[in-house]
Amino acid sequence: GWARAVRGLLLDVSGVLYDSGADGGVPIAGSAEAVRRIKASGLKLRLCTNETQASRESFVRKLRGMGFDVSVAEVTAPAPAACHILKERGLRPHLLVHDDLMPEFAEIDKTNPNCVVLGDAAENFTYANLNEAFRVLIGMEKPVLISLGRGRYYKETDGLKLDVGAYMKALEYACDVQAEVVGKPSKRFFESALAEMGVPPEQAIMIGDDIVNDVGGAQQCGMRALQVRTGKYRPSDENHPDVKPDAYVNNLAEAVDIILRQ
Amino acid sequence: GWARAVRGLLLDVSGVLYDSGADGGVPIAGSAEAVRRIKASGLKLRLCTNETQASRESFVRKLRGMGFDVSVAEVTAPAPAACHILKERGLRPHLLVHDDLMPEFAEIDKTNPNCVVLGDAAENFTYANLNEAFRVLIGMEKPVLISLGRGRYYKETDGLKLDVGAYMKALEYACDVQAEVVGKPSKRFFESALAEMGVPPEQAIMIGDDIVNDVGGAQQCGMRALQVRTGKYRPSDENHPDVKPDAYVNNLAEAVDIILRQ
Repeated sequence: GWARAVRGLLLDVSGVLYDSGADGGVPIAGSAEAVRRIKASGLKLRLCTNETQASRESFVRKLRGMGFDVSVAEVTAPAPAACHILKERGLRPHLLVHDDLMPEFAEIDKTNPNCVVLGDAAENFTYANLNEAFRVLIGMEKPVLISLGRGRYYKETDGLKLDVGAYMKALEYACDVQAEVVGKPSKRFFESALAEMGVPPEQAIMIGDDIVNDVGGAQQCGMRALQVRTGKYRPSDENHPDVKPDAYVNNLAEAVDIILRQ
Repeated sequence: GWARAVRGLLLDVSGVLYDSGADGGVPIAGSAEAVRRIKASGLKLRLCTNETQASRESFVRKLRGMGFDVSVAEVTAPAPAACHILKERGLRPHLLVHDDLMPEFAEIDKTNPNCVVLGDAAENFTYANLNEAFRVLIGMEKPVLISLGRGRYYKETDGLKLDVGAYMKALEYACDVQAEVVGKPSKRFFESALAEMGVPPEQAIMIGDDIVNDVGGAQQCGMRALQVRTGKYRPSDENHPDVKPDAYVNNLAEAVDIILRQ
């Protein structure tokens, strides 16, 4: 019964549409066709990603290059969500992010910073840059740290890499402050994706490979959530102590098959 | 009455003997003479430091250059304490430490590592080195992380710097593990300093500028502890919610005056 009364689908991207690899990524079999079938069916579609190593423009360019019929307007990502918060609260960020993410902040006033925004800066996580972000934070009367995600680590073809969450913890400890996390599994982030689709949570299904950030986060917002057995899925996820998906599916194509049959 | 029945003194070094500065350090007025008076009095003396940016040899060379009559045999520091633990437990470290600390680990087997030892690596805290230490840890069945201190940050002449504790938190979070901290305020560290002096805690006084790591840590071991109003001392320390020194003194010279008068 989990596939009943659906009007919109939220898709995680890495591990659902494609697997990251040496050449930038390999599409998961059947996923490009599944995206086309979702669109043809009239269901609303939203890509809901924690990607912060690229702007939406270059991210979508990569996906289109792999055969996915998606557009920038269909992507919910942490950097634009953070920009919304910055404007709303009159915050001027000191940015410690990946070079390729910088275009997302082009319109934001960055003079005389009164907060720090931390993303997966990768090679930009230098000793000098970390000290600089720390000094900006500790110099504030009440430090404001906004983190684009809270991941622990991820896998690239040349090995595991520390993710933004580890650097967030370093700055949190040094400044005795708690970061505000933008991105999955934050409730506000899912809610903005739903608002952009114009679909209430009870008529939406999240499909992802991450048991905590995708499945748990979406369920907290009142959505149904499926875990695909692709990407970072591991059999041990099926014994997770806190989170139980509404269903497991082998991949996105199977999920779309079942949903469109209703 | 706090100065009665003393047989040994433990001194913190930075902020008690000297202030770190552009030229490596400036002795605090009266401290070199105070060290000479302690020795002449027959009291046992131990330098109890969390210094991990230099080997004891080069650290003592610097202190002697500033006029302090001290020797390597009088120093209790985290790196030798860590070496003791490594040998005791058959641990072979992957080291992420300052280049100048490496000589302390010269005799330690570092092949096929089964733990990570983290010090204040300063410029060695690169993205590549942090990822490498992380990969070594996450590859262990049960990750063992030994941290030489848990400081948040410190001040150098060119500004504040993140200390080892921040990087410890990053690795703790990424690997879901708790570090074992070697150095002040660890009880075991103070106890080894006392054992090296051959003085029981109730006959020893710790003198330091750090209300938590020096004063609080020493009191937890049953020692008396003084806070000097030099180094990182701040007036707000006198309202610390948890730690109250046995006495405040303006500087080391004043402490030695009072103790030797008994």
